[in-house]
Amino acid sequence: MSKKKPNHKVTHRKQQRANKKIGKAPGTVTYLGFREGQKSKVIIIEYDDNAFQVHQTDDVEKILDFKKSPSTSWINVVGLSDEAYIETLGKAFELNPLIIEDAVNTSQRPKIDEYEDYIFCVLKMIYLDANNELVSEHVAFVLMERTVIVFQELQEDVFNGLRERIQTKSGRIRSRGADYLLFALLDAIIDNYFVVLENINAKIELLEEEVYDNPKPETARKIQDLKKEVLRVRRRIFPVKELINRLIDTENPLITKDTKLFLKDLMDHCLEINESLQIYREMSMSLLEMYMSNVSNKMNEVMKVLTIMASIFIPLTFIAGIYGMNFSYMPELQWKYGYFAVWGVMLTLFIAMLIFFKKKRWL
Amino acid sequence: MSKKKPNHKVTHRKQQRANKKIGKAPGTVTYLGFREGQKSKVIIIEYDDNAFQVHQTDDVEKILDFKKSPSTSWINVVGLSDEAYIETLGKAFELNPLIIEDAVNTSQRPKIDEYEDYIFCVLKMIYLDANNELVSEHVAFVLMERTVIVFQELQEDVFNGLRERIQTKSGRIRSRGADYLLFALLDAIIDNYFVVLENINAKIELLEEEVYDNPKPETARKIQDLKKEVLRVRRRIFPVKELINRLIDTENPLITKDTKLFLKDLMDHCLEINESLQIYREMSMSLLEMYMSNVSNKMNEVMKVLTIMASIFIPLTFIAGIYGMNFSYMPELQWKYGYFAVWGVMLTLFIAMLIFFKKKRWL
Amino acid sequence: MSKKKPNHKVTHRKQQRANKKIGKAPGTVTYLGFREGQKSKVIIIEYDDNAFQVHQTDDVEKILDFKKSPSTSWINVVGLSDEAYIETLGKAFELNPLIIEDAVNTSQRPKIDEYEDYIFCVLKMIYLDANNELVSEHVAFVLMERTVIVFQELQEDVFNGLRERIQTKSGRIRSRGADYLLFALLDAIIDNYFVVLENINAKIELLEEEVYDNPKPETARKIQDLKKEVLRVRRRIFPVKELINRLIDTENPLITKDTKLFLKDLMDHCLEINESLQIYREMSMSLLEMYMSNVSNKMNEVMKVLTIMASIFIPLTFIAGIYGMNFSYMPELQWKYGYFAVWGVMLTLFIAMLIFFKKKRWL
Amino acid sequence: MSKKKPNHKVTHRKQQRANKKIGKAPGTVTYLGFREGQKSKVIIIEYDDNAFQVHQTDDVEKILDFKKSPSTSWINVVGLSDEAYIETLGKAFELNPLIIEDAVNTSQRPKIDEYEDYIFCVLKMIYLDANNELVSEHVAFVLMERTVIVFQELQEDVFNGLRERIQTKSGRIRSRGADYLLFALLDAIIDNYFVVLENINAKIELLEEEVYDNPKPETARKIQDLKKEVLRVRRRIFPVKELINRLIDTENPLITKDTKLFLKDLMDHCLEINESLQIYREMSMSLLEMYMSNVSNKMNEVMKVLTIMASIFIPLTFIAGIYGMNFSYMPELQWKYGYFAVWGVMLTLFIAMLIFFKKKRWL
Amino acid sequence: MSKKKPNHKVTHRKQQRANKKIGKAPGTVTYLGFREGQKSKVIIIEYDDNAFQVHQTDDVEKILDFKKSPSTSWINVVGLSDEAYIETLGKAFELNPLIIEDAVNTSQRPKIDEYEDYIFCVLKMIYLDANNELVSEHVAFVLMERTVIVFQELQEDVFNGLRERIQTKSGRIRSRGADYLLFALLDAIIDNYFVVLENINAKIELLEEEVYDNPKPETARKIQDLKKEVLRVRRRIFPVKELINRLIDTENPLITKDTKLFLKDLMDHCLEINESLQIYREMSMSLLEMYMSNVSNKMNEVMKVLTIMASIFIPLTFIAGIYGMNFSYMPELQWKYGYFAVWGVMLTLFIAMLIFFKKKRWL
Repeated sequence: MSKKKPNHKVTHRKQQRANKKIGKAPGTVTYLGFREGQKSKVIIIEYDDNAFQVHQTDDVEKILDFKKSPSTSWINVVGLSDEAYIETLGKAFELNPLIIEDAVNTSQRPKIDEYEDYIFCVLKMIYLDANNELVSEHVAFVLMERTVIVFQELQEDVFNGLRERIQTKSGRIRSRGADYLLFALLDAIIDNYFVVLENINAKIELLEEEVYDNPKPETARKIQDLKKEVLRVRRRIFPVKELINRLIDTENPLITKDTKLFLKDLMDHCLEINESLQIYREMSMSLLEMYMSNVSNKMNEVMKVLTIMASIFIPLTFIAGIYGMNFSYMPELQWKYGYFAVWGVMLTLFIAMLIFFKKKRWL
Repeated sequence: MSKKKPNHKVTHRKQQRANKKIGKAPGTVTYLGFREGQKSKVIIIEYDDNAFQVHQTDDVEKILDFKKSPSTSWINVVGLSDEAYIETLGKAFELNPLIIEDAVNTSQRPKIDEYEDYIFCVLKMIYLDANNELVSEHVAFVLMERTVIVFQELQEDVFNGLRERIQTKSGRIRSRGADYLLFALLDAIIDNYFVVLENINAKIELLEEEVYDNPKPETARKIQDLKKEVLRVRRRIFPVKELINRLIDTENPLITKDTKLFLKDLMDHCLEINESLQIYREMSMSLLEMYMSNVSNKMNEVMKVLTIMASIFIPLTFIAGIYGMNFSYMPELQWKYGYFAVWGVMLTLFIAMLIFFKKKRWL
Repeated sequence: MSKKKPNHKVTHRKQQRANKKIGKAPGTVTYLGFREGQKSKVIIIEYDDNAFQVHQTDDVEKILDFKKSPSTSWINVVGLSDEAYIETLGKAFELNPLIIEDAVNTSQRPKIDEYEDYIFCVLKMIYLDANNELVSEHVAFVLMERTVIVFQELQEDVFNGLRERIQTKSGRIRSRGADYLLFALLDAIIDNYFVVLENINAKIELLEEEVYDNPKPETARKIQDLKKEVLRVRRRIFPVKELINRLIDTENPLITKDTKLFLKDLMDHCLEINESLQIYREMSMSLLEMYMSNVSNKMNEVMKVLTIMASIFIPLTFIAGIYGMNFSYMPELQWKYGYFAVWGVMLTLFIAMLIFFKKKRWL
Repeated sequence: MSKKKPNHKVTHRKQQRANKKIGKAPGTVTYLGFREGQKSKVIIIEYDDNAFQVHQTDDVEKILDFKKSPSTSWINVVGLSDEAYIETLGKAFELNPLIIEDAVNTSQRPKIDEYEDYIFCVLKMIYLDANNELVSEHVAFVLMERTVIVFQELQEDVFNGLRERIQTKSGRIRSRGADYLLFALLDAIIDNYFVVLENINAKIELLEEEVYDNPKPETARKIQDLKKEVLRVRRRIFPVKELINRLIDTENPLITKDTKLFLKDLMDHCLEINESLQIYREMSMSLLEMYMSNVSNKMNEVMKVLTIMASIFIPLTFIAGIYGMNFSYMPELQWKYGYFAVWGVMLTLFIAMLIFFKKKRWL
Repeated sequence: MSKKKPNHKVTHRKQQRANKKIGKAPGTVTYLGFREGQKSKVIIIEYDDNAFQVHQTDDVEKILDFKKSPSTSWINVVGLSDEAYIETLGKAFELNPLIIEDAVNTSQRPKIDEYEDYIFCVLKMIYLDANNELVSEHVAFVLMERTVIVFQELQEDVFNGLRERIQTKSGRIRSRGADYLLFALLDAIIDNYFVVLENINAKIELLEEEVYDNPKPETARKIQDLKKEVLRVRRRIFPVKELINRLIDTENPLITKDTKLFLKDLMDHCLEINESLQIYREMSMSLLEMYMSNVSNKMNEVMKVLTIMASIFIPLTFIAGIYGMNFSYMPELQWKYGYFAVWGVMLTLFIAMLIFFKKKRWL
């Protein structure tokens, strides 16, 4: 939000994107992201208790074979702008066209759809990039028997730890099925939400210090930007709770009772994240109140200085003005110690004023 | 809201309209819009997998024939002020009088009523007109077997893309029934809501820049107008969610299970729109906070300038006043370098004040 | 709220009324209104498809006869302070004493009570009186077979249009039963709520103009009074929604399925009214924000004028003070063009200040 | 809240009380009130349709006899600090120890517990004492067959009207059972809540006048105290609604269907009280807003006076300063009408300023 | 919050901790607290109606024996950083690995999980430490048949009173089972929440006095810190209500009907605590409003002093300036009593101003 131009462009693009969809038939597979012209890449991780293999292929037939194999397959489709290819892939896997549309629609809000043979869910991967800025990436999952298809825009993701665990056979993942893989993927995403929260928390603490120690007009803007960031993150994370809940409540046999125990644990994390976001929201509102109260306090201080200076010197100047008058008959002017007497009066007044302001606790 | 006079007139008319209804029997077909004296026009689009035809007729008997034909009919009634004609039409189609009353009542809030043979729903078409101003038009649908009747006030609408798709046979629409047509109509309306949202978003961003860079008293008014716009749009869009939900939950066989899948997708859009409106509301409130904080900051700056100027020159003027007194015995006046000494004192004071204000970070 | 004295009296009376009830046995018929000493008047409108008659009588026996007649009777009891008479009437109609107590209790909140043989409901008739001020009158209905008893305080009411419709046989009313009459009565009351809303809306628009064009300290008070009015109206209207809902959901055969369709329509009106009141509430809160922001802006303007005047003339006065000193050796005083040189310096300073303030956009 | 010292003591005592309970076994009968060392007193009112008697005794056996007698007994236990005696009493009546603990625990929030043979409920009696200050007293009821036991701290209560009605046989009370007695007791308490509300309302009106006519810094404090009072009253009254609701819904035969009708009426009162408290809360918040807006307006007025005075006289003083300079060559000083010309200039400036401020509507 | 450095460190550690978990397999037992490197210590209190014994052992086998013994065992595991040991213990007791993970995860929010053979719950022990600062400690319970396992970080806890009661056989605890022990443990924790609330209440009262008597810029900060403290405490206490509720509703035979009565009592305490926290939240918000209104009032006072001083002396100085001009023809200067006349004018003006300000109630 610090640079204004790009912002405008984004709006422009959003508008274009909004227009792009209007008038099209529902179910039309339309990529709505910013990374057009990319070719999709498909990476398959196939594993069971004993074996582990990574494949890369574009051949839809070959990909379909992995689905049929008895081991668990994680089919990673990277790059979503190649609409035709993804449509072909979807048809090969007998996915509903609406599913494919949502998998590619990067502005789709988190949701879950259950079909007889597969469960589809979309959510947002949120992480900090190299510049410590929040990046939100669209990611869609299709859970089928022995297979999870993952649709994502970029190869870089939050799943590296998980890939390593599969390869090194650490934890339970190798001995469990596709539903556990889906859980592990969701777990990786939600674990990253905590990093995002920590980042927001750190920003709040920094702003808090800035507000207390040296509030500047820019501080208010930073607080507002923080508030917007919390709003945005919340909007992306909030529906995930409902999604997990639906996975827990589903009667679809694709999700085993065992995995549901793990999903309940994930649910706890979601609740905790939502609570934190609620608290961050209240804290950022408090920050602005604090800021405003500081501005008022500073104004008070400014006014006190002005009032003290003016109240002390205006009367003194008046006295000096009196004896600067040119009346021909002003007896005091002739008094021998008149000048010193006036100094005395002025000093007395000066000290009286100081005591008055001291009493009022303005000094 | 920028011109005050018309506003008043609107109120006046509203009042008249409110009065117009009072005392009348419920179920009386009373047009409440602003476009009186228009003759209704009926345009019928009839299509099936193979054929496509557009008809225009006033003859109620002929219109009724379309209902009986085996192909799907989209009966578009344009112009709602011709109460008598619409009542005749309603009776011909055996619609409940209450339905006809609501179809014509342009101030009816979005709602849905299920009857045995038809489903009735009202909502608001919101779009940007040529002047980029929000226009909200009343539109009512009656879904019957193989027929959708659309009641609207003006011929211009958001359905042109849909008409084209029917004509060019793009998408699934030609091979599906009247319930899919209703879905497609709702989809067109809701897709346009996104354009409205983008417009609001753009206004928020413009106001944000104005608030940060050059806030004027008018800015506050613009923010309030934006808030009211968000309120108004929200009021019109919010009940649509419930409407779609009822369509999904209905057990009426007029809506097929297949179409419900599409309606669920529409439901997602509604949820997203409501979330966005909620966020826009919070953002417009933040804008006002920002504006007020900027006003306070500016006041602070004004006060600092005044305080600095007054605090520096009032004491110096006092010193000058001292030596402007006319006492006959004032030793300093006779000193050779008295004048320069006073200058020295004044300069010292001046610099001391500057350092003091520098330290307070007011300079 | 503009006159303080009467207000106090009201409180006093309320207190008295509150005290009046305390210690009495529940079910004691106690009139709590302000119009004591009135004799009750009973007007009966009796109608069916063919006949229409208006009667007026005090004789409880005769009134009871109307109940037994096969035509529909609207028994209008006007004046509620004659507690003994109303109690007799209630006993004659075999009404529960608690019902009679509530019918007479003008401070009863809107509610509905279902008994086996009758349905009782209380609500508030709100309308604008001759002085355009809101008046809220207590009205209670008892729906029995072929009979509706209406208890009200004053003869003037919002039912004149309905009476006319019955007499002139316009609409469906003459051909339908007592439940439709109850609906028509409720409809008349709720239709009037819209007039009240329009009145509030007009007040908001007037205050909006006042806030933008010429805010005065009284404006804040007017806004607060408006807020209170919205609160009060809301309190009286809000429970009506629940009341209608209960009428729709009841399984009591007194309400026919046909009439329930009409009640559902009424329900829509209630929802719309509640939404409007919610929006008026938010708008009146926005008004106060606007007012406060205007006050701040005005303060800013005042401060700028002060700062500009002071910042320009205080330094100039200082310079004049310098050359008003009486040192015996002040070389500038002897310079031929000293005086003009000082004028030059002062003008330069003056212009410099103007440019400075221009740059700060304070001018 | 007006005196600070006692406040502290209260906190201290509360702390002590909190500590007093910690570490004790749950179910330990511990008196938590301020009136320790009192001996409990038991007064029994025994009545049926024909007889009425008042007894006073300490003898647990005798008290137990009343329970067995066929007439209705109201057993009033006054003074709760005598923990041992109350425990004995509880055991004699076969009450659960937890019940006895709650009966004595004066900080227990309103609640209801149903057991097989009795229903227990606790609530707060709120009334105005002789000094018109709110007093909140703990009162607990046990409803058994033909018996109501009332536990209270002080003999003075809000039941005098009820006692009189029993004695004078007015109303239905003498012919009905113990459940009606419980209702009558609750009714007496809730009727008093209305007096409390009227008192709050009167305070709001007084503060409103103070805010509008003569707001002082203390006014803000009074408003805050009012807000706290509303909060406190609300906290004590709010759970009563739930309590009554549970009494209405209970399937325990101790409460007859007939009495439930009366309880429903009481429920209405509770709803009305809660609505009023909600409105008072909003009104007290409005009061503070009003106060703040008045403070701002006053500041504005102060600033205007300052700005007008300074803006008029600072330039004039500057002109006088000019001609007070001692340059040896100042042509104007020698002009014959120079002095009067300067007066003319100054008057012109003075009038110009007045017109300027008039135009700005500051005068 | 008063020292900034440690704060930062905490954030840092939190970040580290967040990172520590990321990429690890779910169900990995990972200690997230600050007290690493501690060896776990297990203390067992074994008791029944007749016997009471305290044991300390590390031997998992021996610990397991206590579970099998017919008396009730309270197995206290102190120190959670020894992940390996705790995992062994968990396996010995056949606990689900997820349970063990949550028992050790000190940032787990309060929750309850029911399994067939045991019930697991986590909550926060909140108490005041020696420095009167709030300390929040993680504590986890596993209720099994005749056994409660308690996981906690530090030996110091709020259970000393309970231990004493077991040892001295006071109250019912010795004659009841493990479910009552769990209740007693929860009761001890919740009783301590009241102490925490009293502490918050005392802080509010102190801040209230500070706000009214001597508000300083730091006061606003203290209020904000209080608000954050209330938020934090609320976050930790709020879910406990749900936890107790689940214990009451469970159909698991581990919790007897008898104990549920006690849990209902505990539920009341939770409700009361939540209400109090809600009220504290509103009170702390009121504090800030009060503070801001005081700041405004002080500013008003400052401005009044300035305005009075300036308004009185600026015109007087102007008059003195007039007669300080050096025009050669100024008739007043030659008047005999000119000087005294000017004094008279000035005094009149001075008094007029005083009366003016008196009238405006600024003096």
